[in-house]
Amino acid sequence: MEKNPFVTKEQVERIAEQYPTPFYLYDEKGIRANAEAVKEAFSWNPGFREYFAVKATPNPYLMKIMQDYDFGFDCSSEAELVLSDAVGADGPHIMFSSNDTPDREYVLAHKLNAIINLDDITHIETLERLIGPAFPKTMSCRYNPGGVFKMSNGIMDNPGDSKYGMTKEQLFDAYAQLKAHGVENFGLHAFLASNTVTNDYYPQLAGELFALAREAHEKLGIHFAFINLSGGVGIAYRPDQTPNDIRAIGAGVHRVYDEILVPAGMGDCAIYTEMGRFMMGPYGALVTKAIHEKHIYKEYIGVDACAANLMRPAMYGAYHHITVLGKENAPCDHVYDVTGSLCENNDKFAIDRHLPKIDMGDYLFIYDAGAHGFSMGYNYNGRLWSAELLLKEDGSVQKIRRAETLQDYFATFDETEFAGKLGVEKRG
Amino acid sequence: MEKNPFVTKEQVERIAEQYPTPFYLYDEKGIRANAEAVKEAFSWNPGFREYFAVKATPNPYLMKIMQDYDFGFDCSSEAELVLSDAVGADGPHIMFSSNDTPDREYVLAHKLNAIINLDDITHIETLERLIGPAFPKTMSCRYNPGGVFKMSNGIMDNPGDSKYGMTKEQLFDAYAQLKAHGVENFGLHAFLASNTVTNDYYPQLAGELFALAREAHEKLGIHFAFINLSGGVGIAYRPDQTPNDIRAIGAGVHRVYDEILVPAGMGDCAIYTEMGRFMMGPYGALVTKAIHEKHIYKEYIGVDACAANLMRPAMYGAYHHITVLGKENAPCDHVYDVTGSLCENNDKFAIDRHLPKIDMGDYLFIYDAGAHGFSMGYNYNGRLWSAELLLKEDGSVQKIRRAETLQDYFATFDETEFAGKLGVEKRG
Repeated sequence: MEKNPFVTKEQVERIAEQYPTPFYLYDEKGIRANAEAVKEAFSWNPGFREYFAVKATPNPYLMKIMQDYDFGFDCSSEAELVLSDAVGADGPHIMFSSNDTPDREYVLAHKLNAIINLDDITHIETLERLIGPAFPKTMSCRYNPGGVFKMSNGIMDNPGDSKYGMTKEQLFDAYAQLKAHGVENFGLHAFLASNTVTNDYYPQLAGELFALAREAHEKLGIHFAFINLSGGVGIAYRPDQTPNDIRAIGAGVHRVYDEILVPAGMGDCAIYTEMGRFMMGPYGALVTKAIHEKHIYKEYIGVDACAANLMRPAMYGAYHHITVLGKENAPCDHVYDVTGSLCENNDKFAIDRHLPKIDMGDYLFIYDAGAHGFSMGYNYNGRLWSAELLLKEDGSVQKIRRAETLQDYFATFDETEFAGKLGVEKRG
Repeated sequence: MEKNPFVTKEQVERIAEQYPTPFYLYDEKGIRANAEAVKEAFSWNPGFREYFAVKATPNPYLMKIMQDYDFGFDCSSEAELVLSDAVGADGPHIMFSSNDTPDREYVLAHKLNAIINLDDITHIETLERLIGPAFPKTMSCRYNPGGVFKMSNGIMDNPGDSKYGMTKEQLFDAYAQLKAHGVENFGLHAFLASNTVTNDYYPQLAGELFALAREAHEKLGIHFAFINLSGGVGIAYRPDQTPNDIRAIGAGVHRVYDEILVPAGMGDCAIYTEMGRFMMGPYGALVTKAIHEKHIYKEYIGVDACAANLMRPAMYGAYHHITVLGKENAPCDHVYDVTGSLCENNDKFAIDRHLPKIDMGDYLFIYDAGAHGFSMGYNYNGRLWSAELLLKEDGSVQKIRRAETLQDYFATFDETEFAGKLGVEKRG
């Protein structure tokens, strides 16, 4: 599918007058249209709720948009719980799906009345130690089927090598233990594959989880309040990929729901999802300016963003599509490596990429950076995080996070003798 | 070579009473012994100077130790220049080796009288625009030979695919232009391979650079004040590797120096190095506590550090040796994946690692994290950076950076309506 930027060159020029590049820009209109499509796709299920994966884009303004659709938040750390609390999410709207969890985070999740999704059976003891024997009425467990998960399109993932979840035996044991701790409403959760671009993943996963829940329901006599399909619904980073059709996905889950759960008298079971990438990925871009061209053994375009702002290409060799604003219709007759300024040769947003001739000052629009983009930024070489901006439906732009300064970067030296020289207020 | 921790379990227990795990611990004694060995290895060259690569471990206390040996600082960003200035480094002790450089960073480097090492020929124009036609008396250029660099041990790297440096033709052109801008003392710099574990890398590189400098000297009549061998001298992350012998490396460089430079009347040329990993890597460890054990399809030990604290295993699949403090002599008869708590399955410090039986509360010592460890941390999942501690020669421990707090993590929301709820002082 051809990719088009959600802003024009003229808009970005205006924005850049106030907010220097690089910056993250999010498209409220796109976020909302997609959120509505998600809600519609699962409207056959009265209890359906998307728990937005906060780690994808931990920004309270974007979380607030999610709340307009009654979505909740998938949290896996203290910081994400605090953010969810800060935007006013109540307990049932917070799903705490963590692993290797520090004690204090369970305590906080419990205090916020979040739904706790246990990653491991040993965490039942942990929880009892922390909150006593009377557990919340609603709790969930995470399942790991082991082995290899093979999708209909032949793509595989390896849950058996993954650190998450419980074996089937542990899962049934955990449910029985939780029941003894007073839990009445149960959830089942599994994450089997990341960034799938096929409409079959959720339905296939749902089929497995529904059958498992039915078995647990029949064997243990427990009531399943929800099945949590977790994340894994991906986006088409490459223009030659066919994006997921959330309506087809919702219909596919509906089909297996009617096949497996309804006949078992489990038709009151809610479907939960924990999408991050799908909710936000395509609706955020990293906007950066060409500041250097270099002609050696290859042609390089240096930009003012770097892997510190968007690490996926460096970390995973991930593809992010790029177009040059205002040159959407120009022929892609140049081949460039697009680089940042880190002292790391993997600091390249694109390698051997066909692009129009790039002139200094051109704005590059790096697509699909709305999830796992800003949130996976680092500060290597002392490079700073950019601002995050929201392009609102009315065309105005709201700063939803300011850019980092050197003072922020040096903040943890504030108790040292170097504080003053680093521009940080001395403390301690 | 067998790896042994530079602290005992008892020492770490005492330290952990004051500073909760995880933390970075640096070994002053090791750092100093190594710095002395480096100085000694190149003592045949009166002008020798190591410019510590600040990006490896940007901590002013560690930089201060480097200054005791009259070492300088290799900087590639504004933050690194500010740090060097903060520890009182003067111009000749700062080497500014940057690429895709923002204007303001050249201006700052010039203001600090740093030695500017130009990455690209087009930056001569940039510099003229920024500082006028009269350039500093001493300047350097970075060379990229292209193609493949093959070391005597068969290991190769691909300078031709790297974004750094100039072609030979550009290099000679650049020297001529710089001469016209009043430069009198020239430097030559190249980085051809990363983390080499062979005593031949520097001598082989030196041979190429010396010959090139001699040719430039003869053709252009310019005076080479220094040859900068840059970084690339690695460390033995695995116990079965033989570490580099810096004395053999120094002697190897001496040999080619006498062969190539001295006969050309260039025996006043200083040798510079920009080691980071070699100066600090082995003398820093990430100390973390086992907080969770999990038995599913594999055996997992969860610790209280994660890839946010040390990203190399997740990013590069890098090996970091691990021992369990107090169990140095126990048989390694268990096989574990050692994981952090991130919602990323690549958050594993070790995979299928043979270790002694690990009990909850055990301290794990993760070796060779002293360079590109803390500095490559990120905040994914809102995980926070740890403290950095210096184990001093007298056995005392100094906090040289405090641990990050949620307040630090949320600081860039201080101009938003969520500031208060995120515990951040409202500004703007």
